[in-house]
Amino acid sequence: MKERIRVFSPATVANVACGFDVLGFALESPGDEIEVRRRNEPGFTVINKTADTVFPSDVNKNTAVVSLKAYLEHLGSEDGFEITFHSKIKPGSGIGSSSASAAASVFAVNELLGRPLAQTDLVQFAMQGEKAAAGVAHADNVAPAIMGGFVLVRSYDPLDLIQIPYPEELYCTIIHPQIEVKTEDARKILRKGITLKDAVTQWGNIAGLIAGLMKGDYPLIGRSLKDVIIEPIRSMLIPGFDEVKEAALANGALGASISGSGPSMFALSSSLETAQRVAQAMTKTFSQFEIENHSYVSKINKQGPKVL
Amino acid sequence: MKERIRVFSPATVANVACGFDVLGFALESPGDEIEVRRRNEPGFTVINKTADTVFPSDVNKNTAVVSLKAYLEHLGSEDGFEITFHSKIKPGSGIGSSSASAAASVFAVNELLGRPLAQTDLVQFAMQGEKAAAGVAHADNVAPAIMGGFVLVRSYDPLDLIQIPYPEELYCTIIHPQIEVKTEDARKILRKGITLKDAVTQWGNIAGLIAGLMKGDYPLIGRSLKDVIIEPIRSMLIPGFDEVKEAALANGALGASISGSGPSMFALSSSLETAQRVAQAMTKTFSQFEIENHSYVSKINKQGPKVL
Repeated sequence: MKERIRVFSPATVANVACGFDVLGFALESPGDEIEVRRRNEPGFTVINKTADTVFPSDVNKNTAVVSLKAYLEHLGSEDGFEITFHSKIKPGSGIGSSSASAAASVFAVNELLGRPLAQTDLVQFAMQGEKAAAGVAHADNVAPAIMGGFVLVRSYDPLDLIQIPYPEELYCTIIHPQIEVKTEDARKILRKGITLKDAVTQWGNIAGLIAGLMKGDYPLIGRSLKDVIIEPIRSMLIPGFDEVKEAALANGALGASISGSGPSMFALSSSLETAQRVAQAMTKTFSQFEIENHSYVSKINKQGPKVL
Repeated sequence: MKERIRVFSPATVANVACGFDVLGFALESPGDEIEVRRRNEPGFTVINKTADTVFPSDVNKNTAVVSLKAYLEHLGSEDGFEITFHSKIKPGSGIGSSSASAAASVFAVNELLGRPLAQTDLVQFAMQGEKAAAGVAHADNVAPAIMGGFVLVRSYDPLDLIQIPYPEELYCTIIHPQIEVKTEDARKILRKGITLKDAVTQWGNIAGLIAGLMKGDYPLIGRSLKDVIIEPIRSMLIPGFDEVKEAALANGALGASISGSGPSMFALSSSLETAQRVAQAMTKTFSQFEIENHSYVSKINKQGPKVL
């Protein structure tokens, strides 16, 4: 039996405009890179070899450990593991940093143990890590992080995860402005009540987005990538949001919105060239607001985590 | 050029549980059967050869005439037509009676004139007839009546109609209880505000329904055919609703809900045999509430109206 394994686990975009709380997708990069080694005794160690990420001093509050403990408990295992982080998506960026870590550890150990569980069944354990990090056991980041591609979280009780086919030439641009938006705060400012009229608009768009992805109809994907409920509120937390979004659309993006609860923004494009041009335009616009920012351009990740 | 034509135009189911105001589908039966004859002078005549339907005495308030006038105006035509109704879906049944008439007349005359417009382009004119009948220019009945199959009304401004592929073996059971529910009243009782939580549940389900239809995944269609917003309110206008729905599900229906704004109910099944068994069970249950009712079992209509 293998004693150590090194894996990559992807960043993810949740909410996806009209898909608030139900839709997410995975990126080919960036992501977390971790190495997991079996210990000779029970318990968990976390070693940080990343350049700048700070981890909780209590390892039992580490997302990767919380997920792994839930997984091992399910298997009735008392094995201990050492988790070394070689690189880490910046926490608080809005592209599923905690989910990537949660997905990485359960995926890695499931591989080490010879895959006792199917990949989809790992989501429930990674959700425990997500709960430790965000306070709520959301699945719209961890499900695509583990399953790859676009994943619809149709329901939580019971958990119903649906893989949504999508066209081959779909590229994502991520812009991460160096400002802080706490997930918890981003949730607090949402209205608990909305109008039926807005809800109808939103569910017309999510239905259109699913149809557009499955038909490979890029213009339909673009027309449907609209959020009349969450984005108008949360975008107030991102200075320059309207201008940056407008720059993405003016440069050929199918659509753009907030990634997760922000502050990162995402745009989808139908070619690598367009996605790169969109990245330049979005970066330039944020810079005009004197906001430092990083950009990533990535294809949609088909497979989820992978063994390195 | 042909002087007369006889056409069939289908009944339709709008709202489709979680698809309130955005999704509808067409049935193979029942439907309207009309004959249209070119007159020698401008103006319109309506002849009623149906057994029991009463038409407005003013022909200009007839749905079929209003739609046809909008269509002819668009073409710049001053032709006159005589419309003879041979059979008619019962008005107020909740299965798109006014839409079937609106679709029938514009489809018939478009055929008579050698198809100057594409079939999808007829929807906007039939919407005028729908507006005359219901007060609002809704498209979720007229679009499937004209285009066939399942149609998503993603947006109204601009009008964006998306055909949703669906599996071959999908059958619909309709039960029409002999009670009156006015569309206007059914709209009035709806809350204008809803919770974000319910809206998220609903858009997870409409996304699941679209994915289920396009994947041909019957269990997913069934799991998604849920309405947590409209049905709990409108079902109060239909005595026995809960029991009739339960009878449908217990007999193998994938799901069941209110058709349009009621009082008809629909159920979807994955075989003709199941749809027929479901019809019997639903009918029997309504009868236990001493409510007279009619049932129909139909495959989904692929093509929309047809020339007879």
